[in-house]
Amino acid sequence: MSEQNRRIVLASRPHGAPSAENFRLETVPPPEPGNGEILLRTLWLSLDPYMRGRMSEGASYAKPVEIGEVITGEVVGRVVASRAPGFAAGDLVAGRTGWQSLAIGDAKMVRKLPETGAAPSTAIGVLGMPGMTAWTGLHNIGQPQPGETVVVAAAVGPVGSMVGQIARLRGARAVGIAGGAAKCAYLRDELGFDAAVDHRHPDMARHLAEACAKGIDVYWENVGGAVWDAVFPLLNPFARIPVCGLVANYNMTELPPGPDRTAAIMRAVLTKRLRIQGFIVSDFHAQEPEFLREAGAWLREGKLKYREDITEGLENAPQAFMAMLKGGNFGKTLVRVATD
Amino acid sequence: MSEQNRRIVLASRPHGAPSAENFRLETVPPPEPGNGEILLRTLWLSLDPYMRGRMSEGASYAKPVEIGEVITGEVVGRVVASRAPGFAAGDLVAGRTGWQSLAIGDAKMVRKLPETGAAPSTAIGVLGMPGMTAWTGLHNIGQPQPGETVVVAAAVGPVGSMVGQIARLRGARAVGIAGGAAKCAYLRDELGFDAAVDHRHPDMARHLAEACAKGIDVYWENVGGAVWDAVFPLLNPFARIPVCGLVANYNMTELPPGPDRTAAIMRAVLTKRLRIQGFIVSDFHAQEPEFLREAGAWLREGKLKYREDITEGLENAPQAFMAMLKGGNFGKTLVRVATD
Repeated sequence: MSEQNRRIVLASRPHGAPSAENFRLETVPPPEPGNGEILLRTLWLSLDPYMRGRMSEGASYAKPVEIGEVITGEVVGRVVASRAPGFAAGDLVAGRTGWQSLAIGDAKMVRKLPETGAAPSTAIGVLGMPGMTAWTGLHNIGQPQPGETVVVAAAVGPVGSMVGQIARLRGARAVGIAGGAAKCAYLRDELGFDAAVDHRHPDMARHLAEACAKGIDVYWENVGGAVWDAVFPLLNPFARIPVCGLVANYNMTELPPGPDRTAAIMRAVLTKRLRIQGFIVSDFHAQEPEFLREAGAWLREGKLKYREDITEGLENAPQAFMAMLKGGNFGKTLVRVATD
Repeated sequence: MSEQNRRIVLASRPHGAPSAENFRLETVPPPEPGNGEILLRTLWLSLDPYMRGRMSEGASYAKPVEIGEVITGEVVGRVVASRAPGFAAGDLVAGRTGWQSLAIGDAKMVRKLPETGAAPSTAIGVLGMPGMTAWTGLHNIGQPQPGETVVVAAAVGPVGSMVGQIARLRGARAVGIAGGAAKCAYLRDELGFDAAVDHRHPDMARHLAEACAKGIDVYWENVGGAVWDAVFPLLNPFARIPVCGLVANYNMTELPPGPDRTAAIMRAVLTKRLRIQGFIVSDFHAQEPEFLREAGAWLREGKLKYREDITEGLENAPQAFMAMLKGGNFGKTLVRVATD
């Protein structure tokens, strides 16, 4: 095969916000599938905030990307050649093969896309990792009840938009936080959120309090920072806080000045009986069939909407990624690596 | 009845640590039981750290004690006169009738002690609110598994000593934190804890790390402060933190200086998938029969030990309470209000 593999590797570790020199585009000979492996051509690459964490050294829930390694990422691809049973050239697959145009996968790393009728890119979006993150975090931790108020930040993103929509499907009120009037209008008018709050507005905290007149029962933590500060005093007794991401903190290089609010947080945990719990979607891997069944049905019935923010070309992935970390995306951030 | 009621009321709200002038001993005519009520003579008064919270204004999980009101507390008493069905003079009862020598109760406030063969004071100790606090917090949140490491501070106290003993009965390792060599020896030699750490030692954090070579899977939060700081870096992935009390913080009048560690805590919650959850025992009221069945059996079988720290005389309750908040008690703090 004469097609070269184009891949983006971690050139250096970002200190704070990533910048262009942390990434390097390489062109290398195509990989050869071994026995039990497939060669796939990447069609769609998903960009997600968690990838920022993998670019740093130090303890997290997964080992970091090493310098010179291809950056982690979920893709949808087309099988080009198969030496693995159950896969044939032409199959659509999804897997975590990273920021590259050609990749080797095996049956442990990739899965064939089921014939859902949904667009292939949903396998890394509303029916993939982001969608399942929202579903499992609510199912296991958030547990929204009818009439409760669920608040989610980064609400236009693929996880946040699912959180709000699932909350409403469960009978709860959904309040979304997003950056700018256009995104807030989208939440209300397109996704059916009960209220939307612009975090860029200087009165964000007051607007949030007004949107949550009966307090907050579930706060889906995607961002941290100023949103957390606004949410914290509004938490109701027995509020649940699934901690899914902290994008406002990812580029933080040192702790901010005091006072140290540890004692205030713990006091609220005690007196309000809060439940603050971190998770990642893979903790609930066993629930994937249940998620796909329910979310797939919702999607077919038109009860779930999603929006994609598409960047063309693998070489533009670093720029799209950096913009996403600053909230510049409007929907699920995808890179179209090949058109098929 | 000629016996006067002696009672201790909240004279003023403490600012920081309580002091003698926050309490006032009053002698008043005995209360008269109405229809459906009983008059009881207090035998034992339980002193517990949560009472400090009730002495402050402001949001907590219960309304504060008002100025001039009798201070909240669990007691064991003897029925002196009954106008309530199911209660007769001479019955032993337990209830939350507060810091006073005579009290009125009704069937909603007091319960007859079952014939367990255990000493009556256990009804406000190992088989009462503190024991059930430990049992429900572990049952619902801590969920210690065989081989895991459970750390509890204030480990000689009535909740902490139960937490460690139940953890061991569930097959986990118990590491207790207490103040001074005598308490640590008691934890190891009498209660069978696997290790004990003296929080007064300047190397407490190192000693705790040594006692938890495989990290901490359950941290029972009774105290906050420096113990939390020592525990925090040792928490394992998926650690559970039932937040039951924060005695080191109760007298705090303002937040300490920075840096603000909020982001560090939330990062650990996310990356280690911690579960931090506050609770009070009444949240799990429905589990009382199950608790009494299991803990009662353990007690009869000699599998649960307890120690009482007894102060004589209601008038000495404030002093005993203030000492307890500073860790001066050695076991369950009780005031013997009458000998029967």
